[in-house]
Amino acid sequence: MKGKARVRVARLEGGRWREVRDEVAAEAPLEIRLRYGDEMASLGVVLRTPGQDAELAAGLLYTEGLLQDPKEVLAIAPCTDGSLPPEAREGVIQVFLRHPLPSLPRRHLALTAACGACGREALPDPERLGLSPPPPLAVDPDLLLALPERLGKAQRLFQTTGGLHAAALFDREGRLVALREDVGRHNALDKLIGWAFLQGKLPLHGHILLVSGRAGYELLVKALAAGIPVFCAVSAPTSLAVALAQAYGLTLVGFLRPGRMNVYAGQERVAPTGGPELLP
Amino acid sequence: MKGKARVRVARLEGGRWREVRDEVAAEAPLEIRLRYGDEMASLGVVLRTPGQDAELAAGLLYTEGLLQDPKEVLAIAPCTDGSLPPEAREGVIQVFLRHPLPSLPRRHLALTAACGACGREALPDPERLGLSPPPPLAVDPDLLLALPERLGKAQRLFQTTGGLHAAALFDREGRLVALREDVGRHNALDKLIGWAFLQGKLPLHGHILLVSGRAGYELLVKALAAGIPVFCAVSAPTSLAVALAQAYGLTLVGFLRPGRMNVYAGQERVAPTGGPELLP
Repeated sequence: MKGKARVRVARLEGGRWREVRDEVAAEAPLEIRLRYGDEMASLGVVLRTPGQDAELAAGLLYTEGLLQDPKEVLAIAPCTDGSLPPEAREGVIQVFLRHPLPSLPRRHLALTAACGACGREALPDPERLGLSPPPPLAVDPDLLLALPERLGKAQRLFQTTGGLHAAALFDREGRLVALREDVGRHNALDKLIGWAFLQGKLPLHGHILLVSGRAGYELLVKALAAGIPVFCAVSAPTSLAVALAQAYGLTLVGFLRPGRMNVYAGQERVAPTGGPELLP
Repeated sequence: MKGKARVRVARLEGGRWREVRDEVAAEAPLEIRLRYGDEMASLGVVLRTPGQDAELAAGLLYTEGLLQDPKEVLAIAPCTDGSLPPEAREGVIQVFLRHPLPSLPRRHLALTAACGACGREALPDPERLGLSPPPPLAVDPDLLLALPERLGKAQRLFQTTGGLHAAALFDREGRLVALREDVGRHNALDKLIGWAFLQGKLPLHGHILLVSGRAGYELLVKALAAGIPVFCAVSAPTSLAVALAQAYGLTLVGFLRPGRMNVYAGQERVAPTGGPELLP
């Protein structure tokens, strides 16, 4: 399977060493090239888990504000440069555009971090991206509480490698609509949004997003760009994510686990029937 | 405390809603500016947990190959631009250099992911960075098995916010030398390496690194740049991390947990007395 690689491991357990074969999450570089006629521009390299590369490229272009309409995309195709060895070709994907290439933002360093904002000249600006508050939606808290278990069942890769992040999209009845996994938290969400973009399903009003890890600022910007009204994370949010959710009226749920959750913003969507009983 | 922010939360637990005050990990943008005389160049913006900003800036400059010697750094100082409001000044740090500014790598997109390589024109190249295999070291497996508990005890921030990654440096006797935490996995390691860089402690031969999450390619490149011979992660490695560790003779330990661990590369450092008993 593409998303995994087999490795030999020396395992210590119960005081004994054993040599075993195990699986790890695949991580490999992908260069994204934009093409129009004989023009080409490279967006640079992203480290990702191979698979759904076209969705990843499309999702990135959308959430970075470089593409707004799937009709802009004529094709997304692997590299066919015969002068490169097959392995190198797998590390390049080409997005053929209907119109001339957009001007690309410049960055100096991706710097570090799971932040997705690194190396930009400024933070991703919700206003420049034209983000707006997502529409109302009424979801039962019990429906949300059931989602992590559904994600776990659907997340096959994680069960063997322990190394993948997931982004799962549910409809308002809690049915799993799509699931994407990647070594990168942001890649998983970009693949999911790229799928919706290419399918013409954006904006994702009436949907619920669940991510397997934490909720940081950049993930929330992507969710807002996709029109998702309810953002749930299995783990903690950051302070900037909470502030963004409050400012844009996005429902932000953290620590969503069996029997419990924290709602940091947009609680009106979670407790539609009169709101929660607030204790002092 | 700087690394945390207080928020109001609607908490559902045991079928009841309560409004509580809780703490989340602070996340805020930091722009890193290089200065030489009246010249200034911006490296861009990184999302980080405030605190140890000077170490973060120094660590990034070192692990990106832009600085090799702490003597290059005259000072690292907060922004003093009186025309900016205090809050904006907190989002800028200045690195005053002894020599003219280095030419900065260009990136178009940080793209996404916890990868640190994103948006580069190419993957970080171990050869260009002048990385070399770390020197021998003999560590007892039982010493490694004890490290996660020591990290847990030292990791105070995590206990309240649940949202921070840690990078901890231990000496060959397993004593904690330094610990840094951040919302970004890579930031935590850059802060740690930046601390060592500014203290003149590089290379970190004879030391053991433990990170709270997974082991990806970019983290290993940073560890190699710092001369660390043993890289331990509480969670899984990626395929590219395993390949890099094998190629450079770095000891890579994953799933380091009470009573067990997986060694993916460089096992000779972990089982110095004759090696493990290998079963078929």
